[in-house]
Amino acid sequence: MGVLRFLNAGESHGPALTAIIEGIPSNLELSSEYINRELARRQQGYGRGGRMKIEKDRVEILSGVRFGKTLGSPITLMVRNRDWENWTDIMAVEGQPVEKKEIKNPRPGHADLTGGIKYGFSDLRNVLERASARETTTRVAVGAVCKRLLEDVGITIGSYVVSIGELSVKELMQEIPLEERFKNAEKSEVRIPVPEEDEKFKKLIDLAKEEGESLGGVFEVFATGVPAGLGSYVQWDRRIDGKIAQAFMSIQAIKGVEIGEGFQLAGKFGSQAHDEIFWGKERGFYRKTNRAGGVEGGMTNGEPVIVRAAMKPIPTLMRKKSLRSVNIETKEPFDAAKERSDVTAVPAAAVVGEAMLAVVIAEALLEKFGNDDWNEIKERIFQYIQHTKEY
Amino acid sequence: MGVLRFLNAGESHGPALTAIIEGIPSNLELSSEYINRELARRQQGYGRGGRMKIEKDRVEILSGVRFGKTLGSPITLMVRNRDWENWTDIMAVEGQPVEKKEIKNPRPGHADLTGGIKYGFSDLRNVLERASARETTTRVAVGAVCKRLLEDVGITIGSYVVSIGELSVKELMQEIPLEERFKNAEKSEVRIPVPEEDEKFKKLIDLAKEEGESLGGVFEVFATGVPAGLGSYVQWDRRIDGKIAQAFMSIQAIKGVEIGEGFQLAGKFGSQAHDEIFWGKERGFYRKTNRAGGVEGGMTNGEPVIVRAAMKPIPTLMRKKSLRSVNIETKEPFDAAKERSDVTAVPAAAVVGEAMLAVVIAEALLEKFGNDDWNEIKERIFQYIQHTKEY
Amino acid sequence: MGVLRFLNAGESHGPALTAIIEGIPSNLELSSEYINRELARRQQGYGRGGRMKIEKDRVEILSGVRFGKTLGSPITLMVRNRDWENWTDIMAVEGQPVEKKEIKNPRPGHADLTGGIKYGFSDLRNVLERASARETTTRVAVGAVCKRLLEDVGITIGSYVVSIGELSVKELMQEIPLEERFKNAEKSEVRIPVPEEDEKFKKLIDLAKEEGESLGGVFEVFATGVPAGLGSYVQWDRRIDGKIAQAFMSIQAIKGVEIGEGFQLAGKFGSQAHDEIFWGKERGFYRKTNRAGGVEGGMTNGEPVIVRAAMKPIPTLMRKKSLRSVNIETKEPFDAAKERSDVTAVPAAAVVGEAMLAVVIAEALLEKFGNDDWNEIKERIFQYIQHTKEY
Amino acid sequence: MGVLRFLNAGESHGPALTAIIEGIPSNLELSSEYINRELARRQQGYGRGGRMKIEKDRVEILSGVRFGKTLGSPITLMVRNRDWENWTDIMAVEGQPVEKKEIKNPRPGHADLTGGIKYGFSDLRNVLERASARETTTRVAVGAVCKRLLEDVGITIGSYVVSIGELSVKELMQEIPLEERFKNAEKSEVRIPVPEEDEKFKKLIDLAKEEGESLGGVFEVFATGVPAGLGSYVQWDRRIDGKIAQAFMSIQAIKGVEIGEGFQLAGKFGSQAHDEIFWGKERGFYRKTNRAGGVEGGMTNGEPVIVRAAMKPIPTLMRKKSLRSVNIETKEPFDAAKERSDVTAVPAAAVVGEAMLAVVIAEALLEKFGNDDWNEIKERIFQYIQHTKEY
Repeated sequence: MGVLRFLNAGESHGPALTAIIEGIPSNLELSSEYINRELARRQQGYGRGGRMKIEKDRVEILSGVRFGKTLGSPITLMVRNRDWENWTDIMAVEGQPVEKKEIKNPRPGHADLTGGIKYGFSDLRNVLERASARETTTRVAVGAVCKRLLEDVGITIGSYVVSIGELSVKELMQEIPLEERFKNAEKSEVRIPVPEEDEKFKKLIDLAKEEGESLGGVFEVFATGVPAGLGSYVQWDRRIDGKIAQAFMSIQAIKGVEIGEGFQLAGKFGSQAHDEIFWGKERGFYRKTNRAGGVEGGMTNGEPVIVRAAMKPIPTLMRKKSLRSVNIETKEPFDAAKERSDVTAVPAAAVVGEAMLAVVIAEALLEKFGNDDWNEIKERIFQYIQHTKEY
Repeated sequence: MGVLRFLNAGESHGPALTAIIEGIPSNLELSSEYINRELARRQQGYGRGGRMKIEKDRVEILSGVRFGKTLGSPITLMVRNRDWENWTDIMAVEGQPVEKKEIKNPRPGHADLTGGIKYGFSDLRNVLERASARETTTRVAVGAVCKRLLEDVGITIGSYVVSIGELSVKELMQEIPLEERFKNAEKSEVRIPVPEEDEKFKKLIDLAKEEGESLGGVFEVFATGVPAGLGSYVQWDRRIDGKIAQAFMSIQAIKGVEIGEGFQLAGKFGSQAHDEIFWGKERGFYRKTNRAGGVEGGMTNGEPVIVRAAMKPIPTLMRKKSLRSVNIETKEPFDAAKERSDVTAVPAAAVVGEAMLAVVIAEALLEKFGNDDWNEIKERIFQYIQHTKEY
Repeated sequence: MGVLRFLNAGESHGPALTAIIEGIPSNLELSSEYINRELARRQQGYGRGGRMKIEKDRVEILSGVRFGKTLGSPITLMVRNRDWENWTDIMAVEGQPVEKKEIKNPRPGHADLTGGIKYGFSDLRNVLERASARETTTRVAVGAVCKRLLEDVGITIGSYVVSIGELSVKELMQEIPLEERFKNAEKSEVRIPVPEEDEKFKKLIDLAKEEGESLGGVFEVFATGVPAGLGSYVQWDRRIDGKIAQAFMSIQAIKGVEIGEGFQLAGKFGSQAHDEIFWGKERGFYRKTNRAGGVEGGMTNGEPVIVRAAMKPIPTLMRKKSLRSVNIETKEPFDAAKERSDVTAVPAAAVVGEAMLAVVIAEALLEKFGNDDWNEIKERIFQYIQHTKEY
Repeated sequence: MGVLRFLNAGESHGPALTAIIEGIPSNLELSSEYINRELARRQQGYGRGGRMKIEKDRVEILSGVRFGKTLGSPITLMVRNRDWENWTDIMAVEGQPVEKKEIKNPRPGHADLTGGIKYGFSDLRNVLERASARETTTRVAVGAVCKRLLEDVGITIGSYVVSIGELSVKELMQEIPLEERFKNAEKSEVRIPVPEEDEKFKKLIDLAKEEGESLGGVFEVFATGVPAGLGSYVQWDRRIDGKIAQAFMSIQAIKGVEIGEGFQLAGKFGSQAHDEIFWGKERGFYRKTNRAGGVEGGMTNGEPVIVRAAMKPIPTLMRKKSLRSVNIETKEPFDAAKERSDVTAVPAAAVVGEAMLAVVIAEALLEKFGNDDWNEIKERIFQYIQHTKEY
């Protein structure tokens, strides 16, 4: 049994999205407002279609919190789908389906076809309702709870977009410190850490929209203040880089994950690829570079954890640039196309990435420092951080 | 409880490396010779140092197999460290340590320093003995058992090296089919799928050796014959791409993982980034491209699964190009250097990658098709494969 | 990762009780009415206090079911606490506590005191809200989903009360077949399988009520139609008797669990303690006795699974017979007493026992036969049942 | 992922029994001698057949321990089957079976028949080799490691036999304190805590042996010094009584488990069934009775944990009193009988019970107090114990 577990649930157009988190200690301060802020961050982003504007997600905490503090008991988070009243027919829990509204056309790049085969469905809506990235709403809510916990011990998690389509700020952002990149991204509709480039990115999105295209991109998530020693090399599935990779690759449309310099390290000579070790009286051991992205030997090493992920373009395209596919009933080819869709979801995915990193680090923290009363655990963490400095 | 579990164990210079695998069905044919072949593959590779030549790993099966068939009971695999007799003093289970042989100098890029802090050690040998990539020996052994299972239902797993340092065959190999790449790699000392390039790669390694440098690289692992529908979108931790990413990122020195076209997809327009769906009477639904690397919506989609991983250069360097670090006791800086070391371990890592992919796919298979008697499970799999063609 | 997982949540007087179940296959027929029937069964029972009459639990299915069939995606079950409007002050998620209403008096036999120590609470309501047996509501809801699945393959789960306080029908029921015991119990306010004894049991409860006492008892849960071979001897934590024992002992106030003849077997000679094996052309191997309660070697053996559990009396007593305890703040002794309480909850606990047995068997079934499409899995199960007859 | 995991393996007549334990912190003192003492305790007991005398189990530690201290890495324990040389033909890993030696006669009360059906075997030896209680050898070895850990923080685990067949010391032992019962049991060949009764028990065993009978019995395992607050009520599968029940019921031949007064509590009035709460300046809160057996609300409450288990008689009987069964091939009935067998294994099972309780408590301890460096964790535990006294 893991020390921190959660399950989420909910169809995209069902009555509500829900999550139950188990293992959050008692006496952690938590409010729905705190979670709502994160939900709102996920809903921003230039180039999102209509739905994001209609629905402003709000969480209801149904259990596990009393007078603004956690109880140690499982926390239920519920986010109603505000659009539900328009879907009661198509998504009814009971009753009979309206056959003509069944979806028979599987979209390329989506779970539709394989989901239908796997679960034995003739209506592909049964797949897409759950496979949709709408599911990440509750990941962000769960991640918000974890962030709340992490910030109490000085761990900050942030993100920014590195590239959208072929436009990249990778080089331009090099001189900007992590925290500042994050601050800039928070103010940018495209989450770009280099303010001067904002307009270029928006123009690209506008252009893609006109062309009926969609765009992917790369984002970076970081965590600062993480103590050395989370995760472990003693068993392959305790390595925190592995867990981070799973957490990120499990986000819809993510096709690549890097930690630190990632693939770039593969091309370097050994003498250029590692972080030398230094020592200072105040801070103990430290590095001057962070090529490893804060993880060595499957453990955090005290430097900022840096994760980069690649998102493929949203597969739902508009009229002009449709993709070919085949109807599952008639076996007739058709053109997969839609009236409208988001152009890109990279900024939102970055926020989801923050949530997943928060979950992984929070779990590693509780695994290392134990459970139950957050006041007690915090003390243990602060003592350990002191130990890492004095080692 | 997972349907397929394993734990491995063993220090690099201890008496033996061991693994226990639980959940392999009964009636699977399995021999130690089969496993030994995989162990030997891991030990090959141009540019390996002395140890690989000294030690030829051989597995002993201590449980779970009788008369060449699995019993459904846990399988114990043991690989003795042939060098153990030279280490009985330093690695003694009982008795007293010889203090002068303690390791106080943490190597950059390794687990040494953080491991010492985390576990409270003053002798860093306690860390490096387990954090070493020697641990992957039993991963390969466990992976061999899974491969044995997979090949019974037509699933083949293979690998090749794409690049070492700055030398790459990424473009050159494009026209070569997967299976042929694999065949070529099997004959190459550097696991390169393009035979003509072999010499170039070896020269690079020779050069690096002379310079006292080490090299990283990129490798690709594939699985063909995987039925559509392994893994699932219904819960984030059931997504098979997430599990693959964890499995690969958990390999020592891996810093990046991609599925299909990976990071490249982030730069493409939506109309160029997905695999259109076609249908034929014999084979049912299929794709003509495989940009997704065989995974959509967290599930295998019936196309070959393709995973790429980036390995950083071995951090142990030789005299000329040493890295700076600090003694944990005296806090004096020192130069981390060694007399000899491997130049590169990318070809070996590719074989480890095969093992990890085999484990992930075997587990997903047993999760989907159930457990116990392999003869019965095979039938279920063949029936389902038929269903995927007739859907 | 288990193939069937669930988390439940909810405080006793919070807004709602919730559960998310993950791993239920697609295409299982399921209605809220079916679940409500089970919820109602849990709320019956002679000798329950006021609350059971006020609140009639009703489930809302928030996800995972569409047009009366499961989607393979996680199922969210929510049962609102109808009394919630009277508790919005005391159980508010946000805002400030009303200090005078804090609970400082820990009740003997409850989680109050230890919960306060463990989680660092000064208000023991933070403990009792979650430790309460009210939590079993969602266990019953989850169990109902599992029962629905089991009945599709001919597995029936039922229960009856064997004793309350010192009154027992253990001997009297011996000649009555399992199914009939169950039928009788369903008609009895005390769930007694011997109708003639009903009045005696009620009188005992009346008497206890007058005396301000509470009563425990013993109940039996059975499952018929379970195929041989669920669970396994290959690893200790795969044994189904172990899982059953955990599931039952985890029900509030349960202090003992037996399978088959249980403790009685310990006093018998070997020749009297086992079930001889017979064989018939139609049914294959079978037993004429069922001392083992349907489990041998950690596996179901094809005979009915029979589990017995002992429940201690409800610790909340009324005025006359209070128990001594000590205030956590003042350290002053006090008398733990209440105006009113249930006299006994044994009949309700039996229904909870059914739910837990359903969960364990459903999980074992999915582990053995695999996942995803219930139509496909059912076929596998029927084929296997045929195999068990032909072995 | 659990914080403490282990897998064991090994066939009864295979080359060796093995276990890998993962999650034991670093810097715990551990020797093979310590484990061997526990292995020897399991092998004692009046009324054991020949094998116990032949084989004296000795553990080899293959990993995870260096110079008498744990490394935090997985610990491999191996116990060779000394008789292996006589079984190399029948239990060969490779090669061909000698058909005539196949076992076709399933024994009642064993896993033989169901195991054959489940795993698709025609030779039932494939089942019984693993289903045998020989497997508990490594449970005891793993338990020894956990005991080593527990005793460092003042937790002692012991056991004694309460009854064998119809002979019981339940009443006679009431006045003897727990620790003394244990001391007495350690000196008794039948593990009886009342020395004067020893001869009676031995005579019963002699008598049974003469009659060709076997005997079951009841044993009790206790843990003293367990701090309040291990386990939790927040989720059903975190309750420590549930985990204890699973751990005990999973021991071969166990059919019933009780905590504290167990089934007896079901017959009592509420006012007689609970433990009143007291408080003293030195020790804080405490109870004068321990009817709950140290567990309330799914958590340890600071009083000794007391578990009782019922073992059915060994199903292997001798000539005179054989049980009927049916050959799996010919379907001919036969008499299941053997030349020789143990008469009773209750004393050994008690030692296995100690091991399982040690595992459960150690895991709960690490879950609550965290992981990695035992020196650090011990401090946390001592601080918490202080807190429980000052609450």
